[in-house]
Amino acid sequence: MPLLVMKFGGTSVADLSRIRNAAAKVRAEVARGYDVIVIVSAMSGKTNELVGWVNETSPLYDAREYDAVVSSGENVTAGLMALTLQEMDVPARSWQGWQGPIQTTSAHGAARFMDIPRTNLDAKFAEGFKVAVIAGFQGVSPEGRITTLGRGGSDTTAVAFAAAFDAERCDIYTDVDGIYTTDPRITSKARRLGKISFEEMLELASLGAKVLQTRSVELAMRYKVRLRVLSSFDETDETSGTLVCDEDEIMESRVVSGVAYSREEAKLTLVTVEDRPGIAAAIFGPLAEAGVNVDMIVQNISEAALGHDRPVTDMTFSCPVDQVARARRALEAAREAGQIRYEALAVDEDTAKVSVVGIGMRSHAGVAARMFTALADEGVNIKVIATSEIKISVLIDRKYMELAVQALHDAFELDKAG
Amino acid sequence: MPLLVMKFGGTSVADLSRIRNAAAKVRAEVARGYDVIVIVSAMSGKTNELVGWVNETSPLYDAREYDAVVSSGENVTAGLMALTLQEMDVPARSWQGWQGPIQTTSAHGAARFMDIPRTNLDAKFAEGFKVAVIAGFQGVSPEGRITTLGRGGSDTTAVAFAAAFDAERCDIYTDVDGIYTTDPRITSKARRLGKISFEEMLELASLGAKVLQTRSVELAMRYKVRLRVLSSFDETDETSGTLVCDEDEIMESRVVSGVAYSREEAKLTLVTVEDRPGIAAAIFGPLAEAGVNVDMIVQNISEAALGHDRPVTDMTFSCPVDQVARARRALEAAREAGQIRYEALAVDEDTAKVSVVGIGMRSHAGVAARMFTALADEGVNIKVIATSEIKISVLIDRKYMELAVQALHDAFELDKAG
Repeated sequence: MPLLVMKFGGTSVADLSRIRNAAAKVRAEVARGYDVIVIVSAMSGKTNELVGWVNETSPLYDAREYDAVVSSGENVTAGLMALTLQEMDVPARSWQGWQGPIQTTSAHGAARFMDIPRTNLDAKFAEGFKVAVIAGFQGVSPEGRITTLGRGGSDTTAVAFAAAFDAERCDIYTDVDGIYTTDPRITSKARRLGKISFEEMLELASLGAKVLQTRSVELAMRYKVRLRVLSSFDETDETSGTLVCDEDEIMESRVVSGVAYSREEAKLTLVTVEDRPGIAAAIFGPLAEAGVNVDMIVQNISEAALGHDRPVTDMTFSCPVDQVARARRALEAAREAGQIRYEALAVDEDTAKVSVVGIGMRSHAGVAARMFTALADEGVNIKVIATSEIKISVLIDRKYMELAVQALHDAFELDKAG
Repeated sequence: MPLLVMKFGGTSVADLSRIRNAAAKVRAEVARGYDVIVIVSAMSGKTNELVGWVNETSPLYDAREYDAVVSSGENVTAGLMALTLQEMDVPARSWQGWQGPIQTTSAHGAARFMDIPRTNLDAKFAEGFKVAVIAGFQGVSPEGRITTLGRGGSDTTAVAFAAAFDAERCDIYTDVDGIYTTDPRITSKARRLGKISFEEMLELASLGAKVLQTRSVELAMRYKVRLRVLSSFDETDETSGTLVCDEDEIMESRVVSGVAYSREEAKLTLVTVEDRPGIAAAIFGPLAEAGVNVDMIVQNISEAALGHDRPVTDMTFSCPVDQVARARRALEAAREAGQIRYEALAVDEDTAKVSVVGIGMRSHAGVAARMFTALADEGVNIKVIATSEIKISVLIDRKYMELAVQALHDAFELDKAG
């Protein structure tokens, strides 16, 4: 029997009527001949309520107890989903993490999968059960304690089950109907992609397109799990949503598939740093220890440096705006400790990052030139550039962000079906 | 190390501040040198919310899924209680039913304990953990599914742990400060009892004093678990509350310990039933099948019967008012099926039951006479009488109920310390 994994996020199971709506989608797949593993999140708001209680009780909480409390939200949805399916005459039962068992590491709050044995579920499917409903986001540690997987955990649970059970596909039902060429709130020309490669999705996910968590996409790429993102609020069929798949499955890759952005970026420049081997480690080591997520890094000779008698340079990097204070403290502490020397720290908190992503870039020259020309035509000044194999990112003044996204969407003709 | 079981009901853990209050009581016992097993209910209102969702989803629900959903309320409290204790520097951890494991039968929604192995908890106490927090009301079936114990399940969990771990005492914290000679809302002369025997408590529990569930008292009596009922909202010490214990521990038994009542009783009389062997079974069999909780039963020769040519009798019984319609249907169905014959069914829905309870009755004559005299002095007519070794119950007009309770409380001098 072919098997499908279907995952429903918090807004898709927010109340009993939405659970019924989701269950109807499961029933439709059973009617098409699939055995189905359903992964559910907590009803939206429930996890926040539980997390709030834990934080109020114990600011520096025991992560094992945090997990025991917070995992209960998914357990409730799993039972209610199984009952709803039974009411629709679909043979179903719920499974909590320890019942699978979903074996994870002991890293409470951020556990990783170790094994998902097939025995228990396979036996149930063999008995004629059509649907196994799994509480997402959780597992059980080697010590027999409940673990949770951290942010995006339910997506990750879905992908892990799809891999373990050789599912034909893993459908992620959410509140948007797929992956778009860019954010439709920024340009109405944004178009839903029929397919996108894992690599592209990874760049888009980490660049701020919040539909899928990076970790679940990484796992899907590693195990070649075909992911489909679609809306639980629409009528859906085989052609709905966006399929995230291996690039082999995408006949003709576009040069650029999407334009991503990240609004709250800050640009920090250490002016007149001594230019010596190991200086980058001396700067970014303390930043990493302080929990600053440094993104783009550029090193260049400043004009001020030219008049110096010893080799000096400027070091520029970006990080989220809300981490600037932390970055400043870490750098000043390193200076006071004599680990680094610099004349000044210049901070620009009014920047945003805009990126174009596409696996076609690998084989197409001229993408960067086209991007920079499009921005120049709109009078947008580029402050920092960073590139990878399949993406080009620029840091610009925040006030030009929407304009830049629209200009790039037009320049790469993303409104036209590919 | 001496061990104590402490159980906190839903109102005692209704929010984080009450959980802190309960945890402070646990910490005090740890300071006195006890290892403690804490049993917690769900935060008040939570179980009803979960039950409501299940009922709305599936009126004829799969009891296994019901249990999986409803048990989550206790899991949340257990984790929060463990965290609260840790914040107070008391080494504690939570245990869900399957982790104990608390082994029960597979009777979902009304499971019975089979075994509570000591190994896991004993190992933790040996490591220096002072408190094990147990999610009440739940266990795990031989099939590995979550079970719940039905009404009063958390009290029963507490008593079962006290028995399994040879606890010195099982303290049931609730919203009243003990067991009273009668309901203080009916007479301000009601007095808290320092001690009461298991047998008396059982009669009081089943007669409508709602502090402890019958089942937990039965279990306590069987395993000689000393139960103490006390308020989680008061400052408490060793002398607080009421100790429910073996009668050997009560030096001088009072003749009567308490006056109980049950307000919504109905009296039903089958007029002119044929008087033959097996007639009682023919009447009460169908009632039991219909789920009618028949309480008192009296059979007597009516005046109408005297003129009959075959042996006939009147059969009177009582049941809760809200079961009258069901009783009527069951009896009429039995008559139509030819199983019983009767001339009429007389129903009096305006009655209440008042009972006096005391183990001293066993050795004291004249209790019934004293009771009937007290009622007669107030002009209260007795409609039905039923007695057991340690209790006398009467059915009276409902409007006299408070008066009767007050008169009996006075007649047996229950306001005086025993």
